[in-house]
Amino acid sequence: MAKNTTLKKFEGVFPKLEEVLLDHAKSYNLPEGELAWYKQSLEANTIGGKCNRGMSVPDSVSLLLGKELSEDEYFKAATLGWMTELLQAFFLVSDDIMDSSITRRGNPCWYRHEGVGMIAINDAFMLESAIYTLLKKFFRSHPAYVDLMELFHEVTYQTEIGQLCDLLTAPEDKVNLDNFSIQKHSFIVIYKTAYYSFYLPVALALHMLNVGTAKNLKQAEDILIPMGEYFQIQDDYLDNYGDPEFIGKIGTDIMDNKCSWLVNQALSIATPEQRKILEENYGRKDKDKEAVIKKLFNDMELEQRYREYEEKVVGEIRENISKVDEREGLKKSVFEAFLAKIYKRSK
Amino acid sequence: MAKNTTLKKFEGVFPKLEEVLLDHAKSYNLPEGELAWYKQSLEANTIGGKCNRGMSVPDSVSLLLGKELSEDEYFKAATLGWMTELLQAFFLVSDDIMDSSITRRGNPCWYRHEGVGMIAINDAFMLESAIYTLLKKFFRSHPAYVDLMELFHEVTYQTEIGQLCDLLTAPEDKVNLDNFSIQKHSFIVIYKTAYYSFYLPVALALHMLNVGTAKNLKQAEDILIPMGEYFQIQDDYLDNYGDPEFIGKIGTDIMDNKCSWLVNQALSIATPEQRKILEENYGRKDKDKEAVIKKLFNDMELEQRYREYEEKVVGEIRENISKVDEREGLKKSVFEAFLAKIYKRSK
Repeated sequence: MAKNTTLKKFEGVFPKLEEVLLDHAKSYNLPEGELAWYKQSLEANTIGGKCNRGMSVPDSVSLLLGKELSEDEYFKAATLGWMTELLQAFFLVSDDIMDSSITRRGNPCWYRHEGVGMIAINDAFMLESAIYTLLKKFFRSHPAYVDLMELFHEVTYQTEIGQLCDLLTAPEDKVNLDNFSIQKHSFIVIYKTAYYSFYLPVALALHMLNVGTAKNLKQAEDILIPMGEYFQIQDDYLDNYGDPEFIGKIGTDIMDNKCSWLVNQALSIATPEQRKILEENYGRKDKDKEAVIKKLFNDMELEQRYREYEEKVVGEIRENISKVDEREGLKKSVFEAFLAKIYKRSK
Repeated sequence: MAKNTTLKKFEGVFPKLEEVLLDHAKSYNLPEGELAWYKQSLEANTIGGKCNRGMSVPDSVSLLLGKELSEDEYFKAATLGWMTELLQAFFLVSDDIMDSSITRRGNPCWYRHEGVGMIAINDAFMLESAIYTLLKKFFRSHPAYVDLMELFHEVTYQTEIGQLCDLLTAPEDKVNLDNFSIQKHSFIVIYKTAYYSFYLPVALALHMLNVGTAKNLKQAEDILIPMGEYFQIQDDYLDNYGDPEFIGKIGTDIMDNKCSWLVNQALSIATPEQRKILEENYGRKDKDKEAVIKKLFNDMELEQRYREYEEKVVGEIRENISKVDEREGLKKSVFEAFLAKIYKRSK
């Protein structure tokens, strides 16, 4: 209930930003049909998610200030939050094409909407451009304007190299487990997910409050990147061991040849016989082969292995949070809030 | 010969920029295979064109300074020039996917290279990101750093709305001439081509020399946008009336249902009978129907119409060049050089 109120408040900011974006397009005399198309793309691809990334910007700002935000503070922070959602929308629209995905958030993927097709690529570009339109509109005179632009450039690039590595390591149609490794998995997860999902919102909050010092950003990165990696490993774990009723979908990582934490753990401890089973059954669109892999993962006690990993990494993260130097305006509570949201989550 | 020397000199800068981009990727520990992929994408998509846009940055800087450039000045200007080529590469890689194109610069389009496919979308993103990596590396302490970033953001957005309008107006598989109009054509041409091809290089040159004042930029825009529109109308004209031996390709605009200047002129003066011929024969992959349209264009004297347009618009552009106020550092010669390159071109 409290959570819904928060999402509602956050979503309440979007119409103002949408108006700014449409007015901006109108200022170039974009014809009506194209304007309607842009509006539809914005709404279909930006709204309707859980907005965890976006909402964590105002949440972090509030924790950094140690108070409830004024209306103006909330609007500014939520605007930065919506930029992280636009960045995600840019990636999801294009990832869905690259992965030949079918649905997203319970609806057909944008490129699969009637009449959209490959125009979705240009729509993705326009979602990315919207970030800089909003930045210019609302942060042009902010002391951290350059830092904010550079932050988005860098995090965009980081996510792109993560996506490149993911695409080259685990093509859906060509199984080659030699491509996989725990190091590769770590690279993909950190760059494709952790930077934009965990580091970006906090870095934005720090810049908004003019405490985006080199030291604060480094401390945030050193805690949030391992936390983001842990988050994605949870995702990989839940894909196989989670309750479909809770997580809202049936895991398909094994059949989709995903470079998941589980298969990389399995590969790292497999006997030659187990390796053979993996080679012959992983990444096939075949329920029986999937069942063979699931049984192998159980025999190898990967669930137990995950529990041990979780305890170890959370211990390390807590230890690092306890050591945070708050003298330049960073707060431990920002990281504690993130960790509380994901520790032992079941969905 | 002189022209080849110029291209060679400009291309000579690229390896240094490529090294910077690869070093940047290495600084994130991008695995070897991915690094090799990125290198290949950079080289396949950025080098090998005529580099008219890119080279016009050092050319403009030289004209603005009224002297030959020093080695350092040339390197800086050519770096900005390569950023326009990277921006174009980003657009061409993705346009080719959206248009289902087959070849580009005599080779298969990047997405049609063995094993590339939709990964090309992410490669396009990385070409765009390279712009900001280079800007940060070489212009971080330049007084116009913010202007340069905003300029790229804006021109990127302008090109995207031009591409959106083009995609929605002239889908290759669905002929509807009611979508076409001279105004629509003008919008597409200005936003999809003129801003990044004509305005961007001069705006970059002005910023590099710290004379990117509002007045100079406005004067440049007011001359270069009509010039860019004229350039694209020439392209449309040459597609049908040019000599394939000169232009190096056989025009396919009629069969491809392109929202070309010629068809829009035809529509604007067509009798009901002629309109019917257009409706029944334009945009079909059929050589006989194409011949019907070609004959109609001749009957309607579109070649003559083009000649009149050309004389009129070039007269207006010359008039505007003559009125340029040079007191803030802009030079008429910059525009004269552009115009001389395209006036009455046959390829």
